[in-house]
Amino acid sequence: MPTVLPDSDNADGGSIYMSVDSSNSYAYLCGEDLDVEVRVRRVSLSNQSGDLSGEYIDLYDTAGGIAEGDHGVRQLRQHWIWDRDDVAEITAEATGSRSKGAAQPIVRCVAKDGAFPTQLFYARSGVVTKEMQYIALREGVSAEVVRDEVAAGRAVIPSNINHPEVEPMIIGSRFLVKVNANIGNSSVKADVSSEIAKMQTAVRFGADTVMDLSTGQDIKGTREAIIRNSPVPVGTVPIYETLQRVGGSAQDLSWAAFKEVMIDQALSGVDYMTIHAGLLLAYVPLTAARVTGIVSRGGSIMATWSLAHHRENFLYENFEELCDIARRYDVTLSLGDGLRPGSIADANDEAQLSELRTLGELVKVARDRYVQVMVEGPGHVPINKIEENVQLERLWCDDAPFYTLGPITTDFAPGYDHITSAIGAALIATHGTAMLCYVTPKEHLGLPNAQDVKAGMIAYKIAAHAADVAKGHPKALEWDLELSKARFEFRWEDQFNLALDPEVARRYHDETLPAPAAKTAHFCSMCGPKFCSMSLSQKLRNDQEFKEGMNEKSKEFQRLGGSIYVRER
Amino acid sequence: MPTVLPDSDNADGGSIYMSVDSSNSYAYLCGEDLDVEVRVRRVSLSNQSGDLSGEYIDLYDTAGGIAEGDHGVRQLRQHWIWDRDDVAEITAEATGSRSKGAAQPIVRCVAKDGAFPTQLFYARSGVVTKEMQYIALREGVSAEVVRDEVAAGRAVIPSNINHPEVEPMIIGSRFLVKVNANIGNSSVKADVSSEIAKMQTAVRFGADTVMDLSTGQDIKGTREAIIRNSPVPVGTVPIYETLQRVGGSAQDLSWAAFKEVMIDQALSGVDYMTIHAGLLLAYVPLTAARVTGIVSRGGSIMATWSLAHHRENFLYENFEELCDIARRYDVTLSLGDGLRPGSIADANDEAQLSELRTLGELVKVARDRYVQVMVEGPGHVPINKIEENVQLERLWCDDAPFYTLGPITTDFAPGYDHITSAIGAALIATHGTAMLCYVTPKEHLGLPNAQDVKAGMIAYKIAAHAADVAKGHPKALEWDLELSKARFEFRWEDQFNLALDPEVARRYHDETLPAPAAKTAHFCSMCGPKFCSMSLSQKLRNDQEFKEGMNEKSKEFQRLGGSIYVRER
Repeated sequence: MPTVLPDSDNADGGSIYMSVDSSNSYAYLCGEDLDVEVRVRRVSLSNQSGDLSGEYIDLYDTAGGIAEGDHGVRQLRQHWIWDRDDVAEITAEATGSRSKGAAQPIVRCVAKDGAFPTQLFYARSGVVTKEMQYIALREGVSAEVVRDEVAAGRAVIPSNINHPEVEPMIIGSRFLVKVNANIGNSSVKADVSSEIAKMQTAVRFGADTVMDLSTGQDIKGTREAIIRNSPVPVGTVPIYETLQRVGGSAQDLSWAAFKEVMIDQALSGVDYMTIHAGLLLAYVPLTAARVTGIVSRGGSIMATWSLAHHRENFLYENFEELCDIARRYDVTLSLGDGLRPGSIADANDEAQLSELRTLGELVKVARDRYVQVMVEGPGHVPINKIEENVQLERLWCDDAPFYTLGPITTDFAPGYDHITSAIGAALIATHGTAMLCYVTPKEHLGLPNAQDVKAGMIAYKIAAHAADVAKGHPKALEWDLELSKARFEFRWEDQFNLALDPEVARRYHDETLPAPAAKTAHFCSMCGPKFCSMSLSQKLRNDQEFKEGMNEKSKEFQRLGGSIYVRER
Repeated sequence: MPTVLPDSDNADGGSIYMSVDSSNSYAYLCGEDLDVEVRVRRVSLSNQSGDLSGEYIDLYDTAGGIAEGDHGVRQLRQHWIWDRDDVAEITAEATGSRSKGAAQPIVRCVAKDGAFPTQLFYARSGVVTKEMQYIALREGVSAEVVRDEVAAGRAVIPSNINHPEVEPMIIGSRFLVKVNANIGNSSVKADVSSEIAKMQTAVRFGADTVMDLSTGQDIKGTREAIIRNSPVPVGTVPIYETLQRVGGSAQDLSWAAFKEVMIDQALSGVDYMTIHAGLLLAYVPLTAARVTGIVSRGGSIMATWSLAHHRENFLYENFEELCDIARRYDVTLSLGDGLRPGSIADANDEAQLSELRTLGELVKVARDRYVQVMVEGPGHVPINKIEENVQLERLWCDDAPFYTLGPITTDFAPGYDHITSAIGAALIATHGTAMLCYVTPKEHLGLPNAQDVKAGMIAYKIAAHAADVAKGHPKALEWDLELSKARFEFRWEDQFNLALDPEVARRYHDETLPAPAAKTAHFCSMCGPKFCSMSLSQKLRNDQEFKEGMNEKSKEFQRLGGSIYVRER
């Protein structure tokens, strides 16, 4: 009995969720440590008559308990965190983090005095944490590789001690390329339940992290609801909530106000925070001649504050203290690129690159304080200028994981920026970007709905996977190979089940050939039975005469030195 | 009054056609030769209060007379062709090409004895044809550049003397990257009017050529209807109709049967033909160990014939005669890659590359006979193996225009192969591919409908344009720049009108902010008024204090040597 999960906010009438049945289900992989169970999507394969063959392939899955539609997210990390004995309980009331209408103060935790509860600290101390074990199983590598990469700062594991629901994942160029989905409300459109639905849509389609970029009503309540339901790390940009708290005027921002928000968000379990600390006052004039000025929200807010006060960016000035706060909760810092280009005309300009160099300086400060750190990148970049971004980031930021927004490779297609940017994303990830922030079709035009979230996720899972394939990742190659074999052997059900989006693959096929018999037919409606090349090619291969002919010709080919025929005239 | 063109076969309820109004209309550019009028899409720009400013930008347009919805296609080339005095009338009846139910034999033309009515012949003779003048205006280059590139064989102008309706276009890496849309029926689904509708949808969204790949009922009638209504060159794969004529069995094919079909199609006006002449018998065994064998329809047909008879490919054996037929009508040859990979596992293998080398040999044969020729390429290729395809094609095929199908960069996403392949297409075009054959979302699953044609076209116009931008094409950069400026200045109407798909851009914006006032508002629903970075950035720029601050900081920056700040601790 297939279980089709409930649908939400679906514009085109088809189901936007994957169906779960006997040949497309979930399983848990266990390592030596029985405490570590990694959830995977298991696709059972069939033979050419359409019966299950007993073979299967396990695929990386991000949906947590959400996809089954029953138990919800697990608090997988709860006792891992406590067992390390480096954190202490506090009641959130003390810091003002009590939820509206909550009967009890919420219990949250913070580092014990002198303790460093970060994955970076443990990695450098030679300790393989449970999180690292989980990731090793999930990525198909040894736990030692995970520890090494984290210790070197080439990878991060965003996992706040107050977000026990996270299924650990890693961001680093030696691992599978990750995808982040931005969600969150705006003052024009705000509704907590639709944000939860967007988060769930995102993780069902493979979001490795989500960022809550809410700027509208009840930022805090929306974030808390997302975190408590999210099996993936949640990121935020704390300056947004800070701006709201000070009444919406950038001039009124202060380090004190920011710090309060940062602690509050850390206590609620935010796994990583975008910090625009590299946008120095001196760089702002460099944007004056730009076609599109400053297009990062955080960047324009900080630039406004700096200019209004003629003072250096307070996030830069207080960066050490900021790191110390992050360390207490193992919040990973994501150094924001406030001066990223907003059009291809502005790509790789002095403003952008100056900030990137400062981010490299901040990477060192964070690492010295045992704080996990990654670096954000553009934005809008034409294909010919993409590689340079990765090269400079690796050089200036000492191989810190690079996390880019697209980039969009042309500005002429609003409404389709999931595609203009999937091109850039695939390319930048092939060159070494570790995580891609998706762009939805609504970019530049409006707030995405759940259907837009799906469209963005699909485009970005494609970009990330195409990069994994290009980088030769064995898991990515295996997935493509299994699908191609199913295709050549006309195992249609396997083709659908192995697809990134099984429901859509099946629906498109069934539009013209809905009969059950078509699921084992040696053709589809694209070419029909007589013109199916794969069918002809299969027949050729099975034909005895062909086999003999092949042998003969093969020998002839070898005799000629294995080179190509030379035509005689 | 906006004229919204009639909709057809539209799955999601929105209009799939562009609306035409006072700020988004059509115009004709004239050169010195008043006989040469180039149709463009003219976007009139507005000022910041929303009134027309008198400025405009002209965009390359492929829709011919179809988009106005009134006069239909023009017979633009009719007297250009006759004025050259190198062709003679024949009645098509003589070759069996009379349409069913036609009251009169159709008058068609053929080269006069000893005359070479090809663009290549004229280019080499130093003659700039009307077609070349048209193209020079259209591409914004001198006519001499057009002639040079054609003469060298680095570009082709597919323009059969029996297709006077064609608005001339050029395929070559020095020009704008072109996109082909495959249409055509199959035995499972066949209907002439829906094929016409697909062609019209394709050209409205920018298809530079269409290929009629029909394999179902009434191949001839479908083709004739498409050609007579098409303002863009039409390509075919004549082996399909040949196979149908001999009853569907590849063994029964022959050079005689093929030749008859080729002449028939040339008389009906087919501008370019895919010929699988490079698939030699010796290469077939090289496919035996492949994951997906032979996936080109034409390739699998020719391989079957070759193996069945143990004889060399008859298209290869008779290639000189084939060229002589093509020359009589100025049919451009497109050398098919019958052994292109059907999965990334098979990319750049010995089978594929052996055939490519043979295609290089055939390029020389065609050029020696004044026949325009291009070379087809893959297919399914991971990102890391794409560049090699272009390098080898240029080397082995002496810079003949390369025309690739995608390539698809990962096999795991059936239902989304317009995206998996737009990534590869953008990349391969950046490296020098001259024309991209689109892939629709239905690839591998079924026959595309008009909505799929639109989705494929949009993805490929993006890929082609992203490559033009990367190559620094001035027209492409200008388009992106104008849109970016409109975006930064909140000229929403200009942003919509300049968009690749104005209707979708407008609809997405209006989903959350439909009020007319929102069209001049300094924000959209994505961020709302307080968090709009562009709005903040604009305010900054207009602010007197900011300007002074910028000057001061700018001087300070210069004083420090124009380098970045060094942090003092």
